Amino acid sequence: MTSTTPAPRRRGRPPRAEAADAPATRDRILSAAREEFSQRGYDKTSVRGIAKAAGVDSALVHHYFGTKEQVFEAAVEKALAPALDARDTALDGPLDDVGERLARMILGLWENPVTRAPLLAIVRSAVNNEAAATVFRRLITSQLMRRVAARMEAPDAELRVELAAAQLVGIMMIRYVIKAEPLASADIEQIIQRVAPVVQGHLTNP
Amino acid sequence: MTSTTPAPRRRGRPPRAEAADAPATRDRILSAAREEFSQRGYDKTSVRGIAKAAGVDSALVHHYFGTKEQVFEAAVEKALAPALDARDTALDGPLDDVGERLARMILGLWENPVTRAPLLAIVRSAVNNEAAATVFRRLITSQLMRRVAARMEAPDAELRVELAAAQLVGIMMIRYVIKAEPLASADIEQIIQRVAPVVQGHLTNP
Repeated sequence: MTSTTPAPRRRGRPPRAEAADAPATRDRILSAAREEFSQRGYDKTSVRGIAKAAGVDSALVHHYFGTKEQVFEAAVEKALAPALDARDTALDGPLDDVGERLARMILGLWENPVTRAPLLAIVRSAVNNEAAATVFRRLITSQLMRRVAARMEAPDAELRVELAAAQLVGIMMIRYVIKAEPLASADIEQIIQRVAPVVQGHLTNP
Repeated sequence: MTSTTPAPRRRGRPPRAEAADAPATRDRILSAAREEFSQRGYDKTSVRGIAKAAGVDSALVHHYFGTKEQVFEAAVEKALAPALDARDTALDGPLDDVGERLARMILGLWENPVTRAPLLAIVRSAVNNEAAATVFRRLITSQLMRRVAARMEAPDAELRVELAAAQLVGIMMIRYVIKAEPLASADIEQIIQRVAPVVQGHLTNP
């Protein structure tokens, strides 16, 4: 005869039913986190608010992810996942036209409303909060910068990658965040044709 | 015999003593506004809070500037004043090296802590608030973009100016806001030497 008494819940440990469905629960928490960070900004978002939005106990959020900063990092990683796939495609090819592939990949993520919304939330948090900026900086450095730089031979590869990234970041800011014309309404192909040689030049010019 | 009864204060009208010292009072309000917007962000700043910080009545702030958005615009204009002087110097010279002069001027404002602080406050507000973004966009368009574009003959002059600005905006974001290395610590002269040809190219390449 089996006992019907539920096992005592330890703080930070998921109850059995939730543990069995852990990936779905994690996903639900991350979606709630992304929504909260994007609606309220980093400062005003709390682990408790995320837990409430996901319909779970705060302890479960702490159990899966840790601190608010770590939840943010996991939410950003999830939001950037399509970017990382696209990055691998962009990097997987000859270096002499990587500029166009990178420009097309990054601006493509911003053109797509599905990926634009979380990116915008990340940028807003990173601009306004030091902890969020640190997370963003760490991910961009480890996931994008170093991977591109690793393919290059120049001794100043990382600086080159950042100068190239700066051209694209500036386009993002003016076109998608500030929305200044004529750049906000310009044809995306025209923009890619103008910035691809700049990105390429920063990366590979002697 | 003259009456000693003070004239009744009309809402939005400064009392006589303050009116006599209007420029100093305006300046004090604008300094308080800049401080409030920069500390609290656009959303959390109120005309009442600005008035309190400046030691005046809210009605006086409304009298001089109007709505919160208009106070913000006036504060931004004041913060950008050194940039506008520098702009005139940068534009006052041959077009074939305007790229370096613009890069030097804009990055110079960010290198100087006195001008960097208000610029950072403006960027943070503009990234997070639509009304602030509109003010920022209007000022950048009327004060910088159109003036540079007016000196050029290309039919797509405004797009060119924005693509050039994008390179500099991206540097600002990575170096001063996100502070990602190696760009955050790179020698400013080295950065200017790398981006000046890009700015120039966007403006004048065929």
